[in-house]
Parts: sequence; C-alpha cells; structure tokens
Amino acid sequence: MHEVLTEALICHLGFVADDGPVVLPTGFGVEGETLYFHGSVAARPLATTPGRQVCVTVTLLDGIVLARSSFSHSMNYRSAVIFGVPRLVSDPGEKVRALSCITEHLAPGQWEATRQPTRKELAATTVLALSLDEVSVKVRRGPPIDDEADVAAGGWAGVLPVVTGWSAPVTAPDVPAGVAVPRHIRDRADG
Amino acid sequence: MHEVLTEALICHLGFVADDGPVVLPTGFGVEGETLYFHGSVAARPLATTPGRQVCVTVTLLDGIVLARSSFSHSMNYRSAVIFGVPRLVSDPGEKVRALSCITEHLAPGQWEATRQPTRKELAATTVLALSLDEVSVKVRRGPPIDDEADVAAGGWAGVLPVVTGWSAPVTAPDVPAGVAVPRHIRDRADG
Repeated sequence: MHEVLTEALICHLGFVADDGPVVLPTGFGVEGETLYFHGSVAARPLATTPGRQVCVTVTLLDGIVLARSSFSHSMNYRSAVIFGVPRLVSDPGEKVRALSCITEHLAPGQWEATRQPTRKELAATTVLALSLDEVSVKVRRGPPIDDEADVAAGGWAGVLPVVTGWSAPVTAPDVPAGVAVPRHIRDRADG
Repeated sequence: MHEVLTEALICHLGFVADDGPVVLPTGFGVEGETLYFHGSVAARPLATTPGRQVCVTVTLLDGIVLARSSFSHSMNYRSAVIFGVPRLVSDPGEKVRALSCITEHLAPGQWEATRQPTRKELAATTVLALSLDEVSVKVRRGPPIDDEADVAAGGWAGVLPVVTGWSAPVTAPDVPAGVAVPRHIRDRADG
C-alpha cells in the first residue's frame, strides 16, 4: 500500500453529493497511517466531505496486457482504494505539517524551498485527514493468461509497459534571467 | 473533451454502493457521444451500476506547478468528469462494437489482431454505455501564478512536466521463439 501511495502523484476522491456520486482528481500526502488532502474552503468537494464517507483511489497503471483473445486482454496496475470518513484538520500545527506533507509528495524538497503559508492562507485552506485503516490493495502483474487453445493457435502476446516520467523543467516567464532551476527539481527531472 | 478521452488510458468510475461511494479504475472506449466500459458479470461495480447514477472521471496530469509560495502550488491537468445513468448494452451487435472500441482504445490495431469473443465470453461480460451529455471539462495550463510580493522576493518558479510513454514490449513466456512483436505494438512503443 505504501509503495502505491508513494509512487502515485494524484488520487481520485469520490464522495456523494446531493445529486449522486462525484469523483475528482486531487493531490495528497501521507504521514504514517494518515492520508491528507486539501482544497479551497470555497470548493464544493471539500465543503461536502468532512464527516461524510469518502472513497480515495490511487492507481498506478503499469502496462497494457495484450493477449491472443480479446477476452483475455487486461491491464497491469497497482491500486489502493481507501474508505473512510475524513476528519477536518483544525490544529494549526497539524495543518501546517499536513500541507508540508502534500507539497513534499508532489515535489520532494519543495516545502523548504518555498515561502510558507501565512495565517490568512492557512485559514483559506481546508485540510482533511483520512485514516488508512480500511484499504483494499489490488495488483496485477505479469504476462497475459490465454486459454490453451489460443496459445496453441499461435500469435504474439505480451505486455506493453506504461512509464511515467518527467521532461525538462520549464522556468516561469516572470523569473529573472540567471536564476537557476533548484537542484531538487533538476535532480528529479534527470532521475 | 474528446482530446482528454482519446489521450487517457483509464478512467475512474464512481458509484454509490450500499455502504457509501466507491471509486475504481477501469478501461473504457468512446464512440461518438457514448462512453463504453465493461467488466465481469460477477464483478461488484458493474453489478451495481446499471440504472444508477455514476460519475466517470478521466484525468491527464500534465505537470507539477512549482510556485514561490507553497500556497500557489498547483498541477497542470486536463480532466473530464462525466455524470449519468449508464445503460446496459444488450444488443449483441452493439456489445461487440463496444468491446472493439474498448480494446482499440487501450491498444489501437489490437481488435483485428486478436481472436474475437465467443458467445460464451460475450455472455460473461457486462457492457455499459454512458452518454457524454453531461460532462464538465477542466484544464489548467501554464506557469505558476504567485503574488507580486513573492515574485519580487525572487527565487525560481516553473513547471515540471509529467510525461507518460511506453517502454519496450515484453513478450509473454509462452510465445514460441521467432514470433515477432506485431507492427502496431512496435510502432506505438517507438512512437
């Protein structure tokens, strides 16, 4: 589970709105057995979730499984599906730690490199904590599994691996000439 | 919307089970204004969704937006959030077309290259159709937007682009020596 949560960049947060289920992509962070996510105080998903059941799904797609029969096609993936009722984080210390954790998850080394949130910014941010108690982890790995008759009939089968990586950092236009890309960003892009 | 649906490999399907929201990753295909997805007749998500409201979310993560203040961090992404009540596909012709569409979405050129489903396999597969009538598309592009004071304070800011691609196809161990990787798979991996 922790491998999936560490490697994935975003999660999909599901909750039930008045008119049915809603699934939205969002960033997250993990500290110990708690998953943190956040949003604007004004935003709909966050406004609706505290105290209500949610489902947070984290998926890593590892490959397309190409079989000899269309029926046996599949995907190699690792997923964690987390169920629970999020807790609103109100303690200022925990809130800052949670935000640090969310920022570091998206960009390791970045929290210390940036201007920390002001009291006003903290007040404008809703942070939710979800316990990692109820998690269903699923993994599919390996080659396609075709029926014997299909294997005997011949033809190619295998896996086309999916890879996620980085391309070169793009410096913002309002950065003065001569300001270098920080090492923690450069290293990640190269690594 | 069609750009997002074409480029994304999987979607996240959200529905409301007896004990709350559930979000699961799944493959899909698109034909005109219909999104198709499928699963085993025995599987829980498919069994619960026909006739009930679902939310299907398709997300492409394009980059991590690295600002000077932690508060202005963000992500560049394109997402389509589709709401509706899926229709069970029972017409055999439409069912085969939908499965072809789902297979071709995951692996273009693959449907014609593989053994088509038997009547028994078709019966074991539930196919659902979701109209693309009610879709919310969101896009964030471009550099971080920091407050003037943070820009004036100096420091680097920019975007670290996320790229998704392929690595070399892995042939299944039960494929006899000498069977080549088909051209449509090779071209995709190279392209």
